[in-house]
Order: sequence, then C-alpha cells, then structure tokens
Amino acid sequence: MVPKKTVARLILYKRFLKQLIDDGVKNTYSHDIATKFGVTATQVRRDLMCVGYHGASRSGYDVKKLYDEILRFFINTEGKDVVLVGVGNLGRALLSYFSGGKSHIRVVAAFDNDEHKVGRVICGCRCYHINELKDFVDKNKIHTVMLCAPATAAQDIAVQLIKSGVKGILNFSPVRLNLSADVYIEDFDITMNLEKVMFFAGSNTGFEEKINV
Amino acid sequence: MVPKKTVARLILYKRFLKQLIDDGVKNTYSHDIATKFGVTATQVRRDLMCVGYHGASRSGYDVKKLYDEILRFFINTEGKDVVLVGVGNLGRALLSYFSGGKSHIRVVAAFDNDEHKVGRVICGCRCYHINELKDFVDKNKIHTVMLCAPATAAQDIAVQLIKSGVKGILNFSPVRLNLSADVYIEDFDITMNLEKVMFFAGSNTGFEEKINV
Repeated sequence: MVPKKTVARLILYKRFLKQLIDDGVKNTYSHDIATKFGVTATQVRRDLMCVGYHGASRSGYDVKKLYDEILRFFINTEGKDVVLVGVGNLGRALLSYFSGGKSHIRVVAAFDNDEHKVGRVICGCRCYHINELKDFVDKNKIHTVMLCAPATAAQDIAVQLIKSGVKGILNFSPVRLNLSADVYIEDFDITMNLEKVMFFAGSNTGFEEKINV
Repeated sequence: MVPKKTVARLILYKRFLKQLIDDGVKNTYSHDIATKFGVTATQVRRDLMCVGYHGASRSGYDVKKLYDEILRFFINTEGKDVVLVGVGNLGRALLSYFSGGKSHIRVVAAFDNDEHKVGRVICGCRCYHINELKDFVDKNKIHTVMLCAPATAAQDIAVQLIKSGVKGILNFSPVRLNLSADVYIEDFDITMNLEKVMFFAGSNTGFEEKINV
C-alpha cells in the first residue's frame, strides 16, 4: 500500500515532468524535483522507487522514461472520468471550472434530485436524477464522485453513492462522512481551509509544517 | 505555536458547536465530538486545552461556553474579510460560491490584470486592477488572499501579494509557491486531490490514513 502523501507527490511530479517534456527538457535530477516541491532529494528518490523506477540518478533521470513509468503507476486513473453530485452553487462552480478545459480530467455527468435541474445541461454538463446514478456508474465504469451536497444531506447521499458502486469521494460538503472502510474519502473543505489560512495570517508567530504534500 | 492540524480541527469543532447551539443542545462530551470527526476523545481534550478551555468534562462541556472560548481563540480571524486574485474560470467559480451566502466569510474584492474585467462586478464581486491591491489591502486590513492565477503567473503574482502586505495565501493555482517563511501558504489543488481519489478508488487495496484532519 503506497502512502497517501506519496501518491499526492507522485501526481505533482507527473505534472512537473509533463511540463518539462513540453518545454523540451531531456534530463532532470532528484534534487531539481525536490527543490520544486520543497521536499528532500532522498524523499523524491524514495517516492520514485514506489513506481519502480530505477534510472541512473548520477546522470539524471530521463524525463520521458520517468514520466512514462509514473503514468504506468497511475494506469487505473488515466483517462478515467468522474461525475459530480449536487448541482448547487459550489457544484455549478466546479462544473464550469472543469468544462473550461484547464483540467485533463473529464466530468461526464452531474446528478441532483431537483426536478428543475434534471435533464438540463448545466455549465457544460448534462444533469441527471440521482436515482439514475447507479445505472450510469455501472455503464460508464465510474469510480469517483465529487460530492457537493449540503451538510444536512451529504451523509445520506454518500451512502447512496456507495450502494451505487462508487469507490472514491472527493467530499466538498462541509461535513465528515461516516462510511465503510473500503471507500476512499478525501475531504476538501474550502471554508475550513480558508479559515485556517486566515488564522495563521492573522497571528504573528512563525509557521511550522510549511510543506503540505 | 498551535499545530496546523489542531487549528483545522478547532475550526471543525467550532462549526459543530454552532450547529449544536442552533439545535438547542446545551451539553456535549469529548467523545461525542471525537466520534463526529473520527479522532480520539483524548485528542479532542488536548485540542481544547490549546484554546484554554478547562470545563468539567465529566458532566460534559457547556456548548455555549466552549463555543465562545473557541471564538476567542479565533478572534483574529472572525469577521475578517478576504480578497480573491485571478478572475479566470476557477476564480469566478469561487466568487459565485462565496457570493451565494453559504459561507460566513466575505470575499470583498477581486483583482485581475485583464482590463476587460477591471471595474466590473463579476459574480457579485467588484473587480479591481492588481496594481490597486496594495492600497486596498492597507485600507481594509486584509491579510488573506485566495490565489487563482494560472500556473505560469502564480509565482510572480504571489511575490506581488507579499509586497502588498498579504500574510496568508490559499493557493488554488496548480503550482507550488516559493516565498519567504513569514507568509502562510496552504495549497488547495483540486485536480491533484481529484486524481488522488481516482487512484485509490481504482486500486483494490485497503486504505490507510482515513482521517484527514
């Protein structure tokens, strides 16, 4: 089992290597990657061992080969689509962000229980009734949902998601979900994080734990 | 110096206690809070010691008193406003989310360098030129910025933010910022986190580190 933080860093390395390829850079070093992300070179080499890359680090990594190796590690993720549940204010915001084409991940459907939204195309995405989720998930092999439900409804909807076969939830709802252990949940709480920044920005002390990944 | 994760949990406790007050609940126990957030009761009591609350935990905490004590801890944060920099697709999305009134935090201004946006009200928020940021920050005692700049511009803009007196950045840009240690940065990388969920949702192994705060 690869640790969560390693996976997070590997995603960042992947993005960085893609940028290097686009810029025509052929080689890079663990300490270059380390500097970029505020970690140690040892940490970078340890992370890359998880993807099974054993390139000669003295002459630097071959950018293209390393990128391909990381891509292979993320083979279950690449090209996969996600859906969004809860087309409220934040849900719409996310749909318009992803339909803007800045991300390589596609949000292929949205779900809500509001009859006024069902059947419409909202922010570039077709909205279905939440009861259609199971069929959609089965047919399109969707594993991952962005959940933008109100706090009061999030837990019930999450249970329904799991019954529909969803395996991972990026939870934007301002509530912690209580679900079985075989579902992966990542809480993504904008207001909480904004308050956290406001707290440390307002205090005059130094900061520890600067590195987040 | 209170650890980052403690601050994150205290914000969640504060929100939970507010809900209890609204629901008319008078008392709560450390293990109730613990269950709610997937931590131990010992952890909750340790966190609450940071805000200086020493209520008798045998008869439970007085919800109102505990809430007030946590509010006092966040005195530098409460009622403070924030601004947003970078009114692209994601920036607009966030403006419309915060103007929706679901959050108690106010985004009082947006900044961009695009002359077509400057002077307009976008998603409920007045947009100013980025060169006006320093004056605005000074006059309105703003400490915190949500940064939604493109990857290529984020670092330069962040440097300008710091020169303008900004002390904290919630960084939505898909790039790590390299800034002096007296600025607090929290990276909030939607695509990275979504990919992380997709990875674990697509793998068949169990999950460790379920608790995120």
